[in-house]
Amino acid sequence: MADQYAQSGEDKRPAEIPAIRWEEPPEGPVLVLLDQTRLPAEEVELVCTDASALVEAIRSLAVRGAPLLGIAGAYGVALAAARGFDVEEAAAALESARPTAVNLSLGVHRAASAHRTALASTGDPTAAATAALAAARTVHQEDAEASGRMAVHGLALLDELLPGGGHRILTHCNTGSLVSGGEGTAFAVALAAHRVGRLRRLWVDETRPLLQGARLTAYEAARRGMAYTLLTDNAAGSLFAAGEVDAVLIGADRIAADGSVANKVGSYPLAVLARYHHVPFIVVAPVTTVDPGTPDGASIEVEQRPGYEVTDVLAPQMPVTGAGGGIAVAPLGTQAYNPAFDVTPPELVTAIVTEEGAVSPVTAEGLAELCARSRQVTPG
Amino acid sequence: MADQYAQSGEDKRPAEIPAIRWEEPPEGPVLVLLDQTRLPAEEVELVCTDASALVEAIRSLAVRGAPLLGIAGAYGVALAAARGFDVEEAAAALESARPTAVNLSLGVHRAASAHRTALASTGDPTAAATAALAAARTVHQEDAEASGRMAVHGLALLDELLPGGGHRILTHCNTGSLVSGGEGTAFAVALAAHRVGRLRRLWVDETRPLLQGARLTAYEAARRGMAYTLLTDNAAGSLFAAGEVDAVLIGADRIAADGSVANKVGSYPLAVLARYHHVPFIVVAPVTTVDPGTPDGASIEVEQRPGYEVTDVLAPQMPVTGAGGGIAVAPLGTQAYNPAFDVTPPELVTAIVTEEGAVSPVTAEGLAELCARSRQVTPG
Repeated sequence: MADQYAQSGEDKRPAEIPAIRWEEPPEGPVLVLLDQTRLPAEEVELVCTDASALVEAIRSLAVRGAPLLGIAGAYGVALAAARGFDVEEAAAALESARPTAVNLSLGVHRAASAHRTALASTGDPTAAATAALAAARTVHQEDAEASGRMAVHGLALLDELLPGGGHRILTHCNTGSLVSGGEGTAFAVALAAHRVGRLRRLWVDETRPLLQGARLTAYEAARRGMAYTLLTDNAAGSLFAAGEVDAVLIGADRIAADGSVANKVGSYPLAVLARYHHVPFIVVAPVTTVDPGTPDGASIEVEQRPGYEVTDVLAPQMPVTGAGGGIAVAPLGTQAYNPAFDVTPPELVTAIVTEEGAVSPVTAEGLAELCARSRQVTPG
Repeated sequence: MADQYAQSGEDKRPAEIPAIRWEEPPEGPVLVLLDQTRLPAEEVELVCTDASALVEAIRSLAVRGAPLLGIAGAYGVALAAARGFDVEEAAAALESARPTAVNLSLGVHRAASAHRTALASTGDPTAAATAALAAARTVHQEDAEASGRMAVHGLALLDELLPGGGHRILTHCNTGSLVSGGEGTAFAVALAAHRVGRLRRLWVDETRPLLQGARLTAYEAARRGMAYTLLTDNAAGSLFAAGEVDAVLIGADRIAADGSVANKVGSYPLAVLARYHHVPFIVVAPVTTVDPGTPDGASIEVEQRPGYEVTDVLAPQMPVTGAGGGIAVAPLGTQAYNPAFDVTPPELVTAIVTEEGAVSPVTAEGLAELCARSRQVTPG
C-alpha cells in the first residue's frame, strides 16, 4: 500500500465525514476514503493516489458496500486517467478487486467507456481524463439521487405492508451513508421512517465475521439518533419468535435477472426465518445492482474470504491487513468456511425496492421492466 | 473471587484435562475446574475452595454446559458440607447461579437431599458431608454412563436416518467432554460416528457471542482428529442451501414437558433452516434435562446476559470478568439484546436422543415414557 497513507485530522473535520471524495490538491488529484475498517473507534481517512491503492482499499474493505464500490470504481478509473496511468489496465484491476458486487464493475465500465470515447474523438488524454472524472461524478450524483428515491419508495411500501406504523425493523450488515453517495439503501428507508416518527426500533445484526452491523450500522444509527439495539446474528431467531420484528430490510450486492439476491452472508437465514414467521423480507438496492447478465442465483459468483476472518477476532483497532492481524480464538490450524455472501431465491423476497419503484412479487418480468424504465431516464 | 485461584502446571498434566475433578489435598477438599473461558489459548485450572467461588465460576462460564453444571452443582454442595459451610445456603446460591439449565438445579438437589437425609438420620455432619460427596460422585458417574449410551442411541438414529453414511453434521455451541462426565451429548454422537469412519465432516458453528464453537468444539474436534470446519453462525444458511448438511446435532439446557428445547441462542434459527431444507434436527441430552415441571416453551426462563458480551470483542486471552474486559467494537452507549438461549418448539425437532433411547416424533407422551423408564433404573 505504498501509495495509500493515513491522514488524521480530528479538528477541522465536518460533523459527517463522507465515505468517499475526490480532491485536487496541488500535488495532483486524489481519492479520499473514510477507512471503514477503523470505525467506530477512529475516523481515519485513506488517501489513494493511484488505482492500485484503491484496489487494496477495496480488498481490505476500507471501502465497501455495493453502491459505494460503483462510485469508487468510477473514481478509480478517473484517478488513473488524471495521473497518466494506463487506464484500461487500472480498470481491469479495479473490476476484479471483488467479484460479487456488480456495481463495482458497472462504475468502472462507465468511467472507462467515457474515457475511451473521449480519447477516440479528441485524441487528447487530458480531455479523456476530464470525461472519465465527469462520468465518475455522474455515477456519484446518480447514486445520491437514487438513494433518496429508494427511501421514498421503501417507506411507502412499509406503510402499505404495516399500516399500524411503529415499525420494528431488522437489518443486516451496513447499508447507510457509508455505502452510498446519499443515505444508502435499506438504512435510508429505516432513516426515512425514523424521520417521520414511524420507526419504533432498528434491530441491528452485528454481522459476523467483520461486524459491519456492530461497527458501522450502529455508528450510523447512533449519529442519527435512531432507537437501535444490537444483537448477535444468532439472536434474530428469538426476536422473530417473540413477534418483535415487523419487517426485514437489507441491501444487495448483485440481483440476478430472476430476482435472486446476493447479499452479505446471513441474509438468506433471515429470509428463511422471515418466511417461517410471515414477516416481510424487503431488499433495497439501486437498479444498477440488477445484473441482466446473471440469469439466476446459481450463476452468481460468491466471494470466499480468508479463514482468519473467522478464526481470529478482529477489532477496529486492528485493521484487517492480513493473516495474524487479529487475536486467534480457534485452535491453530483450524480450517474455516467463510463465504462473504449468500443468495436468497426470489420466492423468499417479498419485494425489491429500487429508485424506480418496487417490484412485488419478485419476478424476472417485473425486474426487467424496472431496468428498462431506468435505462430510459439515465444516460448510459 | 477470593477463594478461586488459578493453578498453572503445563508439564505434569495428562493429555486430557478433565473439565471437573474433586481433590483432597492436605489443606482440605477442593473442586478443580478447567477454566473454559481461557481455552483454547491456555489450559488453566481454577481451584474452588467454597461454593461462592464455584457460583462465580458458573456465572463467568469458566464451567458451563448443562450436564457439567449438574455435576458441578452437586460437588459444590459436597464442598460446602466438607468445609463446614451452611449447606442449604450454598445450595440456594448454586441453584440460582444460572436460571436456564435444569441440570444444575437437579444436581444441587440430589447432593443437598443426600446431605439432609444423612444429617437427619445420623446427626453427624461428617457423615452427612460424606453422603453429599457420594451423591455428587454418583451424579458424575451417571452422567459419564449416560453420555456413552447417548452416543450409541444417537449413532443408531443417524444410521437409520442417513443410511448412506458419510455424515456431514452441523453442530452449535459445545457439547463434548468439556460439558460432561463422559464425552458429552451431541458431540459424543459425532465422535462415535467419527470412530466408526462414518463422519465425513463436522461443521462447527462459532456460536456468538462467546464463541464456544470456535474455542471449545474446535479444540475438542482437533484433539480427537475429527474432520471439522469452522464457520460463522451466519454461514450455516449457505451450507444448507448447498446441500452440505445431512443432520444438525445439538445439546439442550432444558427440555419442557411438551418437548420444547431451550439451548444456546442460535439453535432455533438452525431448526427453522433444517425444516426448510428437510434436514433432520436432532437434540441429544440426558433425561435429567427434561423438566416435567416446565410444561412448555413459554414457561422456560431464558437467561439474559450482559450487553458487553456483544458490544465488546472478547478473546480467550481476555477472560469474561466484567464490563470492559474486551475491546469495544460498537459505539459507546450501544444497547444490546443478548439472550443466552432460545427455544425450539417440538414440531421442529426430529428427535430427542437420551441415554434411555430416542423419542421421534417428539411428543409429551414419548418424553414422559422415557423419563419414567429412567426413574425405574436410577435411584432418586
